[in-house]
Amino acid sequence: MSRLSNRWLALGALLALLAAGAPASALTPTEILDASKPSEWRRIDPRHTLYMDLASGRVVIELAPGFAPNHTANIEALVRAGYFDHAFIVRSQDNFVVQWSQPDAAKPLGAAQRTLKAEFDRPIDPAVAFDRLPDPDTYAPDVGFAWGMPAARDPRLGRMWLAHCYGMVGAGRDDDADSGGGAELYAVDGEAPRQLDRNVTLVGRVLQGMELLSALPRGTGDQGFYKTAAERIPIERIRIAADVPAAERVDYEALKTDSPSFHALVEARRNRRNAWYKVQAGRIGICNVPLPVRAAAAAK
Amino acid sequence: MSRLSNRWLALGALLALLAAGAPASALTPTEILDASKPSEWRRIDPRHTLYMDLASGRVVIELAPGFAPNHTANIEALVRAGYFDHAFIVRSQDNFVVQWSQPDAAKPLGAAQRTLKAEFDRPIDPAVAFDRLPDPDTYAPDVGFAWGMPAARDPRLGRMWLAHCYGMVGAGRDDDADSGGGAELYAVDGEAPRQLDRNVTLVGRVLQGMELLSALPRGTGDQGFYKTAAERIPIERIRIAADVPAAERVDYEALKTDSPSFHALVEARRNRRNAWYKVQAGRIGICNVPLPVRAAAAAK
Repeated sequence: MSRLSNRWLALGALLALLAAGAPASALTPTEILDASKPSEWRRIDPRHTLYMDLASGRVVIELAPGFAPNHTANIEALVRAGYFDHAFIVRSQDNFVVQWSQPDAAKPLGAAQRTLKAEFDRPIDPAVAFDRLPDPDTYAPDVGFAWGMPAARDPRLGRMWLAHCYGMVGAGRDDDADSGGGAELYAVDGEAPRQLDRNVTLVGRVLQGMELLSALPRGTGDQGFYKTAAERIPIERIRIAADVPAAERVDYEALKTDSPSFHALVEARRNRRNAWYKVQAGRIGICNVPLPVRAAAAAK
Repeated sequence: MSRLSNRWLALGALLALLAAGAPASALTPTEILDASKPSEWRRIDPRHTLYMDLASGRVVIELAPGFAPNHTANIEALVRAGYFDHAFIVRSQDNFVVQWSQPDAAKPLGAAQRTLKAEFDRPIDPAVAFDRLPDPDTYAPDVGFAWGMPAARDPRLGRMWLAHCYGMVGAGRDDDADSGGGAELYAVDGEAPRQLDRNVTLVGRVLQGMELLSALPRGTGDQGFYKTAAERIPIERIRIAADVPAAERVDYEALKTDSPSFHALVEARRNRRNAWYKVQAGRIGICNVPLPVRAAAAAK
């Protein structure tokens, strides 16, 4: 039984028409992106985008207010209080996560709270688009994209949640479900640890600079924590993109996950037509789908 | 419909008996390993184990003669010819692979061949144990373990193959399916690129030292290749463990994937019982299963 939804079929047919007679699958991912229309891209909201500056460069994180509104607001309040200025990356566990926090316990929280009620998942809402992938997933009944991020849902439970894919950012916590809040954050940098789904609040994803985190030396302490303070990687500061002077800001845009070009890209990845591939997977995992991001064209 | 096989159920029941009344799921992974019996571990064959020495340490690779007998023999011939001595890691692509080769085109191949017929998959053989996982996989009808490595199979095709999980090692090739052979090797270091399954010959997996590869700086050239020779990471040498003087050798053993302790470990990962987890996944992906390796006890 095919799980391909009617919506996908309709968009696939539309794309085939748009592609001037060429089968959609004959286009390479680069050609698909090159042929995409400006209207197929969404501007990343600078009010919910973080710039984390390391000595090695900038990590750009898009927050997820649709899934974690309270954590998003709290992290923004922490950032505005300067909480993450002179913070540190304190953990790098191979094939799992990179984690950062503020070791200075006296650092003021500003308007933020230390802990928040968990936002592990949220209700499915017909008003929130869920662009479902057609292929089965090990961990959830449905997987796809919501607000441009990899997500899962269970119609039986009536709940949806962000998926722990490579590059996703979450709020660390202790054993108490409500002990997180965003003062300690992590980014996934190995095989998707999907067992964390619905157990921890995901707050966004890394748009740019993931390689600055994933290539860090692994910590040799328990769970990949750096054993000594000297091994920690300094974070110069974290700022909200909207607060950064325009001259220092890069506006990003992401390919909309409900766009014909995105659907064509997914299909080109499910069935790769270049000469190298001898067997088509005919499938794709939620965490294997590329989510194209580019610098936005300058405003006219 | 449960896909749990009778074999798993039988072993689960056995384990429950062995665990002196405690439910199997109440044991932590560490407790399961501590309680495992010597007979549940298999000695890694030093004749098919590679030691790759970098300035930063040693990467240990177990080859897979069961899946890739010709590539295994060819790689061993290359190693014995000193082909990889003073070779280089030439590529590190974020969330994909690290790759190494011998840039010196004049380096002798010894008894090895430059290219080999592909060994992308092999026949399913009732004599070859396949320890199937009970949970669905996006890419293949069945996933599990064969010869201790993550594998997939399709009973309809009558074929089985190694799965591109984190730490798996493969033989790079050009567009021609038979253009690999083992002179260029890669290790997977991101989200499992399962679309490569059955498209390239996997030859083994990294047992130890994966973090020495995964934490390398990402290449800034096309596909993560290092742009300049100076950026390449030198490989001092690769040797076969059996050829190394006993005093320099570490014998490893791996938990057998058909052992009660391994099945208990998988179950403890499918349903995590520690206080931190609020929701059990109840599932596990083939590439999320830990494959315990330890230094073997000294021979008596």
